[in-house]
Amino acid sequence: MDERLKKQMDFILEIDKSKEIIRQTYISNGSRKENDAEHSWHLAIMALLLAEYANEEIDVLRTMSMVLIHDLVEIDAGDTYAYDTAGYKTKRERELKAADRIFNILPKDQAEYMRGLWDEFEACKTPEARFANSLDKTQPLMLNDAQGGRSWREHGVSRSMVSKRNEHTADGASVLGEYVQEKIDKNVKNGNLIDN
Amino acid sequence: MDERLKKQMDFILEIDKSKEIIRQTYISNGSRKENDAEHSWHLAIMALLLAEYANEEIDVLRTMSMVLIHDLVEIDAGDTYAYDTAGYKTKRERELKAADRIFNILPKDQAEYMRGLWDEFEACKTPEARFANSLDKTQPLMLNDAQGGRSWREHGVSRSMVSKRNEHTADGASVLGEYVQEKIDKNVKNGNLIDN
Repeated sequence: MDERLKKQMDFILEIDKSKEIIRQTYISNGSRKENDAEHSWHLAIMALLLAEYANEEIDVLRTMSMVLIHDLVEIDAGDTYAYDTAGYKTKRERELKAADRIFNILPKDQAEYMRGLWDEFEACKTPEARFANSLDKTQPLMLNDAQGGRSWREHGVSRSMVSKRNEHTADGASVLGEYVQEKIDKNVKNGNLIDN
Repeated sequence: MDERLKKQMDFILEIDKSKEIIRQTYISNGSRKENDAEHSWHLAIMALLLAEYANEEIDVLRTMSMVLIHDLVEIDAGDTYAYDTAGYKTKRERELKAADRIFNILPKDQAEYMRGLWDEFEACKTPEARFANSLDKTQPLMLNDAQGGRSWREHGVSRSMVSKRNEHTADGASVLGEYVQEKIDKNVKNGNLIDN
């Protein structure tokens, strides 16, 4: 096999491990927690369908590509739960190391492209990255709301924690900021989120 | 919430069920079978990375969108295993009915767009659809090869069955046709596929 294709297929096989990285959010039927591959798939379809709500004009292909690969670093670094304060202290360092290894399985040009997409998502300073981050915050909130806030209740999550986590959701899409606020209010009212 | 956004979010929540549709292919570590959401995520990243091998020029965004949604109909119709002859007799009818229900959860313009993408994938007559179908055949073959052909052995799959299933893989990308042929030959040799 050609050396370039081999590197590409090695990477494609390597990222299969994303299917083993378990998040804290339950899928909508509540039967189990979702994994990174499923989460990223969901975000990509959201990017396509909700692009009209982006506050600024976005390149949909770039945004979809970004959300599809934004969690690949967790293959090495693991998923850091949104409300794990200790984990967040080492998250950046663990993920940078992972990015160095994983993206470099690809041929150089594609490694640089993928790393650029991931860096852009992390920096959150372009319209595409802001919108991608809005989707990344909206999707677990939608799922938590859909199946009765089990993940929030298991971790004793409060209104202020979710609000803090979503402080920039409206930056990518005001409409999603409102959607998230509506769900927070509802779940405080029904007791899934601690009111504080 | 605005009526249009409500329909979009209802659809986005509905398709979460793709995470429960189990395929016959095992994930690369062999621990369990993969589901439709994971499979579609994998294909979308492949579309991005392997677009250079498409036999004809393709619109990458359209191809990615197509692979992301190509299996949504299985939420109602179920996954029909590649080598399930009886299942294939009713597949088309079951999937058409599913498409009518699922895509129409969306606002009309997006329902038509999504249905158009799915019809295009099924008809396999555009460069994007031919390439998407090549990816859809290549990915399970890569996984089967990676974890020792367990799914093939469990179902008594032969060389001719896989070859027949892949008769159009080279139509979208000659390079993927060659990749697939190499994997078939290897797995006949090592006994994962019955030689016939």
